[in-house]
Amino acid sequence: MEFRKKYRAVSSDKQSQLCVGIDPAYPGVRPGNVIPACRSPAEDILSFSLGIIAATGRYAAVFKPNLQYILPLGLDEMRTLNDAIHAQGALSLLDVKLSDIGATNASCCFWAREAGFDALTASPFPGNIPSLWDDCKKRGLGLFLLCLMSNPEAGMFMKSRVGGELAYAAIAKAIASEGITGAVVGATIGDEDAHAIASLLTRELALIPGIGAQQGSTDVLRLFGERSVVNVSRGVIFADDPAKKAKEYRDQIAKICF
Amino acid sequence: MEFRKKYRAVSSDKQSQLCVGIDPAYPGVRPGNVIPACRSPAEDILSFSLGIIAATGRYAAVFKPNLQYILPLGLDEMRTLNDAIHAQGALSLLDVKLSDIGATNASCCFWAREAGFDALTASPFPGNIPSLWDDCKKRGLGLFLLCLMSNPEAGMFMKSRVGGELAYAAIAKAIASEGITGAVVGATIGDEDAHAIASLLTRELALIPGIGAQQGSTDVLRLFGERSVVNVSRGVIFADDPAKKAKEYRDQIAKICF
Repeated sequence: MEFRKKYRAVSSDKQSQLCVGIDPAYPGVRPGNVIPACRSPAEDILSFSLGIIAATGRYAAVFKPNLQYILPLGLDEMRTLNDAIHAQGALSLLDVKLSDIGATNASCCFWAREAGFDALTASPFPGNIPSLWDDCKKRGLGLFLLCLMSNPEAGMFMKSRVGGELAYAAIAKAIASEGITGAVVGATIGDEDAHAIASLLTRELALIPGIGAQQGSTDVLRLFGERSVVNVSRGVIFADDPAKKAKEYRDQIAKICF
Repeated sequence: MEFRKKYRAVSSDKQSQLCVGIDPAYPGVRPGNVIPACRSPAEDILSFSLGIIAATGRYAAVFKPNLQYILPLGLDEMRTLNDAIHAQGALSLLDVKLSDIGATNASCCFWAREAGFDALTASPFPGNIPSLWDDCKKRGLGLFLLCLMSNPEAGMFMKSRVGGELAYAAIAKAIASEGITGAVVGATIGDEDAHAIASLLTRELALIPGIGAQQGSTDVLRLFGERSVVNVSRGVIFADDPAKKAKEYRDQIAKICF
């Protein structure tokens, strides 16, 4: 089943558009609520992640492990992670921000599927958008293309001029014309940019980071409504009570989007 | 020691500017010379890669494992890979094309260092260039930023207009002004673009893919001379005799660059 359909079914079933970002902190970076460094890094990351999935799975439609945070995991551990996500009736999105040439993108899609992910994120920067989407479809993966990210410096390239228009508009048009699953659109972006992107993406999903620790607004959620996939990472996974926080975010998002 | 100094020492010592790209084929993608699917994917990829390193290590200054091809490897297997690379007196460059926000880039740098890599590749698309470089320096990693890649579609964004200039020129200027290790510059790019980039990068390294299977020219190698890090992947690792091919490429490159 196509990712958008799966998401519609899961989000309606769980009454949730919350995506929990699995970004386990590496040793030493946080003062508290970090991964206990008990065994090997891979075992510690896996057990922390499985704990988050068990605690918040009831409230999350999607989990989004970021590859840069789970780098120590091998294929078998990624499979264990994805089995746990699916056991909660949720979808798994690999946040890899793939940014490579065609043959390499195909390899990522192959292994992402083998590991049990349902979708991935990618960057349009190398330009191979149609072939990347073909690779995803071949493996039954959804695809979210970076369009306008949540960090303050995202405008340098995402608002550059591509053939007389803003880069994010060119990306949004490519997403719509290719039938790609969706776009990554930060909650922190300005009103004008948000409206411009939403007017180009009338059927696509928006993966929206930035409402938690990055303190973005909820305007982008209003624009995309039921097509929003709203990511919170640190705001849930490092909370004293991740389940309670996930429920709060789930309810807050549902009030805006449904 | 800073990556540029390490590279100068290694390339002079081995009389080589060859970088062997470790891109093990996933099952089913190639008719021959593929990874034998004997054990687990991680074990098969590791044993194929160790075989390539043993066969070609004498002729390679750098090995460049691409993360999308070695995705099944966990941290311990990456360490084994890097130990083998260092035992050959070569450097290891993680081709990850990192393309994320600040906190996530820091996580990648942490784990890349833990795994024993000496440098990594990243995309400037999210715009956090100075903070990314700070994260690399903190972990003693070299950094190669995508500037103008080897694939035909690379121009869409890398030749877009950023503040009145071509994007690749803005990237090259940022590399030079920040003191970043080097740029990824495809051997397949045109003469004018190559000269423009070389005129901006007068002290930096150029990681040059595209002279093997992608049939790029050797003009970019001439422009960067001893500062060239010349990547060949498929042309070596899937050859009937990888050692012989690596020696041929090493000698061919040395004639042009030294």
